[in-house]
Formats: sequence, C-alpha cells, structure tokens
Amino acid sequence: MATPPNPIDRQRIWNDLMALAAITDPEKPYTRRSFSPRFLEGRAWLKQRFEQAGLAVRLDTGGNLIGRLQGSLADAEPILMGSHSDTVPSGGRFDGPAGIIAALEVVRAFRDQSHHPRHPIEVVDFLAEEPSEYGVSCVGSRAMAGALDDAMLASKNPSGETLAAAIARIGGDPDRLGEARRSSVEGYLELHIEQGVVLENNGVDVGLVTAIVGIARVEIIFEGAADHAGTTPMDLRRDAGLAAAHLIVDAAARAREFATRGRGHFVATTGILNQEPNAANVVPGRSRLVFDIRAEDDALLEQFLRDLDEHSRVVAAVQNVGRPGFKLLSRTRPTRCDGHLQGLLEQGAARHGFTTMRLASGAGHDAVFMARIGPSAMLFIPCLKGRSHTPEEWAEPKDLEAGALTLLEAVRALDGEDA
Amino acid sequence: MATPPNPIDRQRIWNDLMALAAITDPEKPYTRRSFSPRFLEGRAWLKQRFEQAGLAVRLDTGGNLIGRLQGSLADAEPILMGSHSDTVPSGGRFDGPAGIIAALEVVRAFRDQSHHPRHPIEVVDFLAEEPSEYGVSCVGSRAMAGALDDAMLASKNPSGETLAAAIARIGGDPDRLGEARRSSVEGYLELHIEQGVVLENNGVDVGLVTAIVGIARVEIIFEGAADHAGTTPMDLRRDAGLAAAHLIVDAAARAREFATRGRGHFVATTGILNQEPNAANVVPGRSRLVFDIRAEDDALLEQFLRDLDEHSRVVAAVQNVGRPGFKLLSRTRPTRCDGHLQGLLEQGAARHGFTTMRLASGAGHDAVFMARIGPSAMLFIPCLKGRSHTPEEWAEPKDLEAGALTLLEAVRALDGEDA
Repeated sequence: MATPPNPIDRQRIWNDLMALAAITDPEKPYTRRSFSPRFLEGRAWLKQRFEQAGLAVRLDTGGNLIGRLQGSLADAEPILMGSHSDTVPSGGRFDGPAGIIAALEVVRAFRDQSHHPRHPIEVVDFLAEEPSEYGVSCVGSRAMAGALDDAMLASKNPSGETLAAAIARIGGDPDRLGEARRSSVEGYLELHIEQGVVLENNGVDVGLVTAIVGIARVEIIFEGAADHAGTTPMDLRRDAGLAAAHLIVDAAARAREFATRGRGHFVATTGILNQEPNAANVVPGRSRLVFDIRAEDDALLEQFLRDLDEHSRVVAAVQNVGRPGFKLLSRTRPTRCDGHLQGLLEQGAARHGFTTMRLASGAGHDAVFMARIGPSAMLFIPCLKGRSHTPEEWAEPKDLEAGALTLLEAVRALDGEDA
Repeated sequence: MATPPNPIDRQRIWNDLMALAAITDPEKPYTRRSFSPRFLEGRAWLKQRFEQAGLAVRLDTGGNLIGRLQGSLADAEPILMGSHSDTVPSGGRFDGPAGIIAALEVVRAFRDQSHHPRHPIEVVDFLAEEPSEYGVSCVGSRAMAGALDDAMLASKNPSGETLAAAIARIGGDPDRLGEARRSSVEGYLELHIEQGVVLENNGVDVGLVTAIVGIARVEIIFEGAADHAGTTPMDLRRDAGLAAAHLIVDAAARAREFATRGRGHFVATTGILNQEPNAANVVPGRSRLVFDIRAEDDALLEQFLRDLDEHSRVVAAVQNVGRPGFKLLSRTRPTRCDGHLQGLLEQGAARHGFTTMRLASGAGHDAVFMARIGPSAMLFIPCLKGRSHTPEEWAEPKDLEAGALTLLEAVRALDGEDA
C-alpha cells in the first residue's frame, strides 16, 4: 500500500503553538490560568484562528470554546477533537494547546484537500482542565458530561468568587448548564504530549492510550513519642519517622511488584512526608504521609489500598506507634479508551509508517469525562525527557506532525465508516 | 551498718525549686533564657539564697555565679558542685536548677550538722548551659576550662550582640576570661534529672553516670528527579524520598545492633527529613536528612559514621539518585566520668539503701568541660516518663532528696579522704 498524501502543515502547527504561547503572563512564562484575562486573550486569538479555518465558533453554557465544521449528513452525531488552552502556573507550551492546534490542523488539512466530512467536526477548547483556583479541574468536560455538580459550582477561589460566577464572567451560563450537556457523540479524539518518558525511551512515534488510570490519594498518620534523641534507648523508642520510612520502602517494593504483573500501568508514590518536630535532637513523634496510587486495573488499585491499610497497621505495631489516620483523600476510577478508536488510530499511524505502542495515561485528561458520553480515545506524542508543567516542556515539530496526521487518518476513517 | 542520719530537708529543696521556677516568662512557663532580664532575676534570687546559706558569693569573669564555703585546710583544692539555672524556651523546672539546689542543700545540711569541711566547697550556677541565642552552649563551663575561644565570643545573637558583649552585660569580663579558668579541682559532682526513662523503667533511685556520650551530627542529601507521579513508571524513577526512607530504615537497624554490642550507650536518630517538592503528584526529587549519633564508645561512633557514608552511597546507587552531600555538622568526643567519684556516689547511695545503676548520659552537660579540669562525675535522678525541656518535666521530691543525700555522702567522703 502506497503512503497516502500528507496534508498536515508542520510549520502552521508550530507557528500557532508559538503564537498562543506568546500570550502569557510575561513575569512567568508560560502562564495562562483559566478564568484570567490572559486566558481570555488566548481564547480571543483561538476564536479568530477557528474562524479563519472556516469554523462556526460558539461558547457553550459550560464555557467551552467550540469551532464547528458542518457535515454533509443531516442529523449525524459530531466527531469531537480537542484539549485545553489553560495552563498551570509557569507551565509549558504543549500541555493542552497541542491537542487543540492539532485538531484545528486536521480541519484545515481537510479544507486544503477539499475533503468534506459527512459528520460535523467540532474542535473544542475545554474550560479549565488544569486544577483551577476554585479547586475543580476539567470544568468544561465535566459540564459537557453533566458531571459539574452544585457543590463544585459553589466552590470559591481565594478571592471569594464562586466557580458559577466565574463561568458566567467568561461567557458561560451556569444556570443553563444542561444546554452544554451532550448525550452522545460519534467519537472523541484527543492528542496530548505524553508527560512521561516511555515513548522517548522506546523511540516510538505515537502512543495509543489504552486507558486513563484511576487515582487514589491516601493520607496516613503515625503517632509516636517525641523523645530525646540522646537519652532514649533504641528499644524504648516510638519513632513515627521510622514507621513512615518502613512504610515508604514497603509500598515502593509492592508497587514495583504490582507494575510487573501484566495488569497495565501501576504506580504508587509517597510524594508528601511531614514529620514533627523535625529537629535533630528529637525522635520524630508524628509523621504524615500522602500516597498517590494510579492504576489501569481498578481491582489492583483496590488490593494495593487494602495492603497499605493492613501493612501500615503492622508497621505501627512493630514500631510501637499509633496509626490514628488512614484517610482516602480522593478516588477516581480508571477510564478505558474505546478499543475501536484505538484501532483506527493504530491503522492511521501505520499508513504513514509511524511506530506505535500502547500505553496508559498516568495523568487525568478531559477524555475521562468525554468517555461518559461516547467512544473516546487519546494519542500521545513524545515530549523531551518527560518534562511537563514547566517552561522546559518540549515537543518536536516532527512529532506534532506525526500526531496530527494520525489524528486526521482516524477522524477520516471514523467519518467514513457508516457510509 | 546502721543508716546514718539524714540531714537533707526535702521540703527546703522543693520550696527553692518552686520559687526559682516562679521566676519565668509568664507567657510561656518555664522560661528563663540565659542573658535575659528574667535570668538575671533568677540569679539575684539564687545569690540571696547562697548568702543565706553562709556562702561567699561572686561572679567570675566567665559569668558563672559561685557560692563558696571556706574549708579548714589552707590551700586545699575546692570541691565543686553545680549545674545551670538557664532554661530552654518553655522548658521545665528541674533541668539545671535541681543540680544547683541539691548542691546548695548539701552545704546547708553540713551547716545544720555543724560539719566543717576541710576543702572549700563551691556551688556553681554555670552560665548558659543550654544552647544560647549566640549559638554556643555551656558558655560558663567552657570559660572555666579555658575552652571558650575567640570565634565563640564573636558569635552574635539575632539582634547583633556578640557573646562577649553579652557576658560583659551580665557582669562577666570577657577581656579577663583567664581569671575564670581553673587548672585543678578536688572534684566536680553534678546532680541532674535523667531526661530519659531508664531509671524509671528499672525502678532505680539513683543513676551513676559512666560517661557523657560523644555526639556526631551528619547531614546527607539525595538528589533525584522530581518526575510526574502518574506518568513515570516505577523502574524509571529517581526517587530521593525512597532513598531517604531506605537509609533511615537501615540506620535504625544498625543502631539497634550497635546498642546491643555491650559497648555502652549507643543511639542514632534521623530527626530531620525534608523532601522537595513534597507534593502529592510529584516523585520526591531531593531529600535532606540530619542524623544525630551518640555513643559512649568513640570507636563505635566512628564505625557508624563510616558505615553511614558507605551505606548512603550504596542506597544512592541502587535508587539511581545522587548523593551530593555527606557533611559532618558537629562532633564531640565522649567524656568518661571519674571512676573513683562514681564509687563514692555508689557507696553514698548504698549507705542509705538507695538502689543504683550505671548508665551513660545521652545528653551533654557542663560536666563535659569540668572533666577537662579534674575528676568529675554525675548522678541522675528519675524524671517522669523521661520528659524534659517541656513544662511537664517532673521529678518527685523523694527522688530529689535521695539524690541530694547521695551527693552529700560523696562530697563528705571526698573531703575526708586525704585526712
């Protein structure tokens, strides 16, 4: 089979990404926090680019910016592509924008080829995917899936503004959120940088996302005795710091073992450890740990949580400390990506000779909520050394091109299936 | 042998301790920081009590408050007893004062019995035993041993005052420190609360201190990579927090083993652990640990330091992190208490039927510097649950009495030996 033509314009993608990146808080590039004036400036620029590509642009009541290309079939469900234009503070230029600009490029390439899709094609800039000032992430995709509840809408930023008021301020309508809600789509496809090193380490062009991991956050507290480090014999200590260290070592060993079971992506991290009084001459009397556990296989995650509960009790007993706290701070379930869409992406990449591999997403994305509406899938492109949420975040133009081309092939195939 | 008479007045000791304790920063009892107005108020009260006991009171050039009872022998070396009246912030009523008031009570008991010692007896309130605002501890006993050097005298408190200026301010004379220096004493005896649980746990009345431990403080830094906790597979991590946890577990196991070798008191503590960025969703990229290691046997301490160096390198290699820092922050050698004085204390306790045991001091004391001048020893009395440096610090009146009586017997015996 001959390689099909490549209508993707690598330079056009790059120029757009750099133009959007230039719209940043100049004090700390690259910052375009959701709901901020800078964010609205970025959206105004995006709206213009959408319109230049021939898209009809609107803002839904959930605050999502949507550019729509009409399809030739009446009443056909739309095919959605997208990501988000908001950033974390001092973030990068690709996490989010790459998915929007790649989607926009797919539409532009269709137009350049005079290809008229049968289904409507929508390019979406979802509102506030990153954790916002209001303590809620994925605001726009939640709204589209009907998962933005009243408690979330009532949550406030440090200035006291509610999320509902903020959505209204940027042009949404929180009182008519139901209008943003979708009940079905033909499919949703999202391109994103990997934010990890798996593709780079394996020298692979395109990653086919099998699932977005479920995440559990657990807080564990050990309570011992803050005794004198000089006068308290080793065998009379109740060292909460030592209990924490034992649990960290054991949890990491268990996570390594779980990761090799062939049941998909599994990671566990002890990111937070605080001990008190944290003084050189005092035995740590109290320690607080926060574990972040992510798994493709929810049963494995549940087993890890049970093991962590059991094992932290054992560690406490052995070290003669109390374990007053074992608290599930948050919990999301894994989202499986649509197998058929994965197949279309794989075939699309293969048509252009791109190498692919399947991998899970260890980070959350808008696709989690889109999967509640209809078939959803993601493709990853490599990013330098896995760096993300930092100004050094980097994706090569050739990788952006390969991703956009894969996306184009999958959309074209999906669009043509029921022909 | 009949029990000798007991001239120690338990109530007099207790009343004095409570009267001195009442001289405190009222906002945070019990606080009488060295060099503070409250400290000077306490000393004025002590001076009066020394004088009421018939002692000649003076302040030496090193800022030590000394009450002296003349002996009957011309040119005899003095027998010194003492401790310190300064406290840590929000400290207790016994750490320090117990040793001064017990010494004072011994002199008062001699007077009540019309016993006239042959050697001069000096009761000393050493200046600033606790870590002072100037970063130096044991200021007065260092001065007496000629160990207060120019660098220490030049060190400043947060307000910019030098230690030399502070010594002058409270009545010492830093330019004539040589006059405070002693070249020999007949003996030095210090009573102190144990600040540990060994006596209480063993139900023993009086502890005979074999040695004051040597102390090493070591800072170790691990440098890994602050990668995304969701996207970085377990086997590609460079987790500085996990390296720290491994080292903490290993150091504690080694310390437990060293403590059982029959080579005296040995403890090691990881009191300080800071990790960065200390965020739930980021693999710890950097960790800093401070170890506090204390040993009666200096060779064992040296071996532990070598092992810690070697083992932290191994942990770093296994966890694929760097170990840019291994720094000895401070180091003191063990001080052996005088065996003959230990024997006199033991016999003194036995005469009154008090149970004794030998144990090392895990904390530093003025006796460390007094041992450079002449034979020095310490006795410990039990304190409730080992609590010290806290308002809950507590010693029973009967234990204070037993300690003072043991001290009295030892001083009397030492005083009579060369008769």
